Amino acid sequence: MELTVLSGGTGTPKLLAGFRDHEKFDNDELTIVANTGDDVMISGNLVCPDLDTVLYTMAGIIDEETWFGIEGDSFVTHERVDSLSVSDPREHYLPEEKQTEGPEIGHWRRFSGYREFMRIGDRDRATHITRTALLSEGSDLTRATARMSSRMGIEATVLPMTNDPVATMVETPQGPMHFQEFWLARQGEPKAQSIEFRGIKGARLPGAVREGLDRPVLIGPSNPVTSIGPILEIPGVRECLKATTVIAVSPFVNDRVFSGPAKEFMEAIGREPSTRGMIEMHKPFLDAVILDNEDTTETELPVFRTNTDMDAVGPETLAASILEKMKEWVS
Amino acid sequence: MELTVLSGGTGTPKLLAGFRDHEKFDNDELTIVANTGDDVMISGNLVCPDLDTVLYTMAGIIDEETWFGIEGDSFVTHERVDSLSVSDPREHYLPEEKQTEGPEIGHWRRFSGYREFMRIGDRDRATHITRTALLSEGSDLTRATARMSSRMGIEATVLPMTNDPVATMVETPQGPMHFQEFWLARQGEPKAQSIEFRGIKGARLPGAVREGLDRPVLIGPSNPVTSIGPILEIPGVRECLKATTVIAVSPFVNDRVFSGPAKEFMEAIGREPSTRGMIEMHKPFLDAVILDNEDTTETELPVFRTNTDMDAVGPETLAASILEKMKEWVS
Repeated sequence: MELTVLSGGTGTPKLLAGFRDHEKFDNDELTIVANTGDDVMISGNLVCPDLDTVLYTMAGIIDEETWFGIEGDSFVTHERVDSLSVSDPREHYLPEEKQTEGPEIGHWRRFSGYREFMRIGDRDRATHITRTALLSEGSDLTRATARMSSRMGIEATVLPMTNDPVATMVETPQGPMHFQEFWLARQGEPKAQSIEFRGIKGARLPGAVREGLDRPVLIGPSNPVTSIGPILEIPGVRECLKATTVIAVSPFVNDRVFSGPAKEFMEAIGREPSTRGMIEMHKPFLDAVILDNEDTTETELPVFRTNTDMDAVGPETLAASILEKMKEWVS
Repeated sequence: MELTVLSGGTGTPKLLAGFRDHEKFDNDELTIVANTGDDVMISGNLVCPDLDTVLYTMAGIIDEETWFGIEGDSFVTHERVDSLSVSDPREHYLPEEKQTEGPEIGHWRRFSGYREFMRIGDRDRATHITRTALLSEGSDLTRATARMSSRMGIEATVLPMTNDPVATMVETPQGPMHFQEFWLARQGEPKAQSIEFRGIKGARLPGAVREGLDRPVLIGPSNPVTSIGPILEIPGVRECLKATTVIAVSPFVNDRVFSGPAKEFMEAIGREPSTRGMIEMHKPFLDAVILDNEDTTETELPVFRTNTDMDAVGPETLAASILEKMKEWVS
C-alpha cells in the first residue's frame, strides 16, 4: 500500500527501519516527510539532522546506537577542530545581524564551526557538503535530497517538509535559542517556556509533499511538538491531513515517553505530556491511533493496541502489524 | 637575526623547513608573509593553500611528499563527497552573481563542494573550518591565523599578505578562471595568456606585514608570478621593499624551474622564464640574489652561489648557508 510517514529524528526512523526491512512492503510505495526545523548552518554547511537520519536509515547505514550519523563513522575533522580551539564551553551562535545573511535557508540558525558543538562524523560531513554545494548551485532542498537519496540507493521517496527556512526556536529564561543550542549545547537544561517555528508562515509546501499527503498518512512516534509540530504548521498541511486518513503512533505510553524531550516540550506549549495530549493536539485531522498494549488512554477514535516498544519487539514486527492494521482501516 | 620571508606554497616552505630545523636560528625572529591569491571558498570554507602549507611546515606536520596538507591525513570526507556525486569531470565554479555574495573574503573564488575538485584531508579540513568560523565571528584572517598558529605551537609569526579578497585569475583561450581551477581542476592545460590579481587595488597591507617588511626580506624560491607576484602588488609593499634589504632565492637554474608552473606564468606576463627574468622583475627593490652553483646568469647585483637543490642538499643546509650570507650582507 502507498503510505506517507511524517518523521522526526529518533522514534520514527526506528520504525522506518522496520518498513525498510519488512519483506512484504515495497519501499517504492513509501514517502517520508522529514522535519527541517532542527536544521542548522554550522562549519560552513547545512546540517539537517532529521532528514539525514531518515536518509541513513533508509540506506541502511544509520548508527543504530544514537540514531544520528553513520554507523562506524570516524571523527577526524571534528576532533581536530576541537584541538584547534581554546576551551570554551559554548556553542557559537552567530550574532543577530548575521542570521539573515547568506543563503536564505540558513536564516536564524547560523552557528560558527568554532569548537563545533555538534558531533559531526567524517562521512556524515560529506552529506552536508554535497547538500550545501547543490543548494549553492541553485538546487532546492527537495532536489538536493533526491539526488543524494538516489546515490545512496534509497527506494523510498525522502522529502524535506519545505524548501524554505524554518527554525525551531525555544524560549527559555536565558532568552530564545535554536533547538540545537537548547538540546545539544545546553543538554536541554534551560526550562523550555514556549516554542516558535520561525519562518513557518512563509514556508511553502513543496508539490511532492502535497502529493505525499494525498495518501494515507502515518504520524510516527516522534516528539509531537518539535519533530511533528513544524510539519503540521506549514500552511496547507492541516487541510491536506483533514482530507486523508491519518493514523498516529503514540510516542508515549500513557504519560511515559520512549525517548527525548517530548515531555518538556508538550508542557511548554501547554499540552498534557501524554498520549491523551497528543490525541488532543492532532484531533482535527486524526482518524485512528496506535498505542502500546500498556497504554490505558481512552479515546473515541479507533485504537489498535500492540507492543510499540521497538527495543523489545523489533521495528520490523511493529511495522508489519501497523501495515496490516492500516490496510484494514484504509480499505 | 630578524628576517621576513615572502612565501608561496612549495619551494619556499621547503626552505622554511630548513629555517625551522636550523639549531642556531631562533624561530621567534622569523616572520613569514604568505600569498593568499590562490585561496578559494570551497565546501563551505575558506581554503588558503599557501598559508596552510606554511602553517603545517612550521608546525612540523606538513606532508613532505606533496607540500600540501597534513602528513598521514585521512580523506574520509573527501572520498565520501566523491561517492555522493555523479561523475562530472569539472570543478563547480559558482555563477558570476554568486561570486560577490556572502563573506567578502571569498569574492571571485567561490566553488561549490560538489565533487570537491581540491583533495582535502580530514585534519586539513579542520583548519578551514576553524578559520572560517573565526572569520564569521568577526575576526580577520591575520588574527584567525595567529590563533591557529598558536594552537599548533608555532614560534614564527605567520601572516597572510592581506585581510582583503585578492583572487589570482588566469586568462586563457577558454576564458578567465581562478588559479585553482586552472591548476588543479584543469591541470594547467589551457594556455595562460595573462594574469589578473582581482581585488588587488583595494587590498590593504596589514600593520603586522608592514612591520615585517621593515626587516631584511628574503623572497623565497617560489613562482615569481602567482606566488610572490600578488604580495608585491599589494599597494605599499614595493615602497617597503625599496626601503629595506631584499634578497631573492631564484626558483630557477638559468631557465630550468625546480617545480610548478613558474615558466608558463613568466611567459604569460611577458617575462623571460629564467633567473634573469626574475631579477628583471624584482629589479627596483632587489639588493642581492642567491643562485644555484650551476646557474650562470650574469647580474650586477651581489650574488651568492650555492647548491639550491634542496632535494640534494637538504633544506637545513641551504637555510644555514643563506642565513650566514645574509648576516654578512645585512651588516
